Amino acid sequence: MKTFLDCVPCFVRQALDATRYVTDDERIHEQVLREVLRAASEADLTATPPAMGQHIHRRIRELTGVADPYRGVKDQFNRAALALYPELKQRVEEAPDRLEAAARLAIAGNIIDFGVRSEISEEEVEATIRSALTDPLVGAIDDFRTAVDEAESVLYLADNAGEIVFDRLLLEEMPKDKVVVAVKGAPIINDATMDDAVAAGVPDVVEVIDNGSDAPGTILESCSPAFRSRFESADLVISKGQGNYETVSGLDKPIFFLLKAKCQVIADDLGVPVGSLVLRHNCA
Amino acid sequence: MKTFLDCVPCFVRQALDATRYVTDDERIHEQVLREVLRAASEADLTATPPAMGQHIHRRIRELTGVADPYRGVKDQFNRAALALYPELKQRVEEAPDRLEAAARLAIAGNIIDFGVRSEISEEEVEATIRSALTDPLVGAIDDFRTAVDEAESVLYLADNAGEIVFDRLLLEEMPKDKVVVAVKGAPIINDATMDDAVAAGVPDVVEVIDNGSDAPGTILESCSPAFRSRFESADLVISKGQGNYETVSGLDKPIFFLLKAKCQVIADDLGVPVGSLVLRHNCA
Repeated sequence: MKTFLDCVPCFVRQALDATRYVTDDERIHEQVLREVLRAASEADLTATPPAMGQHIHRRIRELTGVADPYRGVKDQFNRAALALYPELKQRVEEAPDRLEAAARLAIAGNIIDFGVRSEISEEEVEATIRSALTDPLVGAIDDFRTAVDEAESVLYLADNAGEIVFDRLLLEEMPKDKVVVAVKGAPIINDATMDDAVAAGVPDVVEVIDNGSDAPGTILESCSPAFRSRFESADLVISKGQGNYETVSGLDKPIFFLLKAKCQVIADDLGVPVGSLVLRHNCA
Repeated sequence: MKTFLDCVPCFVRQALDATRYVTDDERIHEQVLREVLRAASEADLTATPPAMGQHIHRRIRELTGVADPYRGVKDQFNRAALALYPELKQRVEEAPDRLEAAARLAIAGNIIDFGVRSEISEEEVEATIRSALTDPLVGAIDDFRTAVDEAESVLYLADNAGEIVFDRLLLEEMPKDKVVVAVKGAPIINDATMDDAVAAGVPDVVEVIDNGSDAPGTILESCSPAFRSRFESADLVISKGQGNYETVSGLDKPIFFLLKAKCQVIADDLGVPVGSLVLRHNCA
């Protein structure tokens, strides 16, 4: 997906928020903001939004000297999600359609924003999970089931820390011998890396690889040759979250997208209302 | 008030929205966006936010060739507000404290955003007016009354079209011979100009002057010598809305601010919660 003009003010806001998250030094806040504005003024809008995000967060890391500013938050996300895991697992086991329940919970993991506050109330998590389990899906679980069954190799592109615990529930319902999960190759915002996959116990379920890249999405040119080869050889890609959607939606490849359409630009690109729970094949 | 870093993403968003309002030409949307980003990357943040707004909107007018893009909206705001005027006048006349009711309605005029949709429901307008009449005020009406009574000359800085009809209710409760209203000297967004003052019937109540400027606030260096002289000689300034607050709050002059604190930056600068109804002296 190209970068829309509406993405630009959002980048500027995110860059400021992220820099403040990393340091209290107001000179660095201003420096990053000015650099992002200048870069955005000259940006190639045919590139995807995560390409800009990759550039911005590299610069934040350079200026602050902090290689993994979100490490603490990611640990916290993982712990919070792992605490929910046993109960969620039980829900899947008791569901009339286990794959659908697990897929819906994987989308719930994309919805719950552990990052907003240090504590998220049990009521809020429960409400999000309940609505993810019952709200209408854009897309059909049977198409997903068929696509997974018919594929010989499935590549699952993970999204964030914390969320990856929810992904594990879905991975456990899939044919494990043909599924590989890909995490990011280096820290980028709160995206899951190998550390998070391990913390979530995913390598005990399926093979996990990293994509060799520090982009908040899957920019193939930025990924390792090993990952690109796995990507090319996969019969089916399962793409989780907005960053992956933005970067792989234009590729000529069978892909299922699992995400909540959180912003107007993505919702318009998908042709769905904002807030939709999406489980849709790119060929549908 | 200086421009805070948080104002910058907001400028970028507003510039894009305003350009889209003026033209459907996407090349111009992109051109304005890129110019605003570049200008913001080099901006003097010690200048006030309306100084940047003035620059942005001049450029939008240049690029689109439309001198007063908001003329239609302003007319619509005025008509909508004038339709409410008789009922609002009656509320003032029946109020136990007419000056307070009129001041609160003047703030209500600052709240009602006629611009969001072409039709604003009667229920919404009624709810806004009711809350403006009853919500706690930051500041004391008696301080306002005393300041107006004791001043020999009062300069009232108007804010937007539509809103100026609500200002008229307050002006009608003030000693008319010592009050002068100032509107903008040229079209800038939906700010009230002399045309709007006339449409609202304000010149029938008090003297109206224009400030000679096209800034969305009161930047004295950008105003006419005639206006500056009136500003300097006024014993008391009444400043309406955020744009005037941002530009005159740092001046060494007795000023009463009437506004709703709509954004976090302004609320923090005033030291009040977002959403507060403010009727406060700068010396308080």
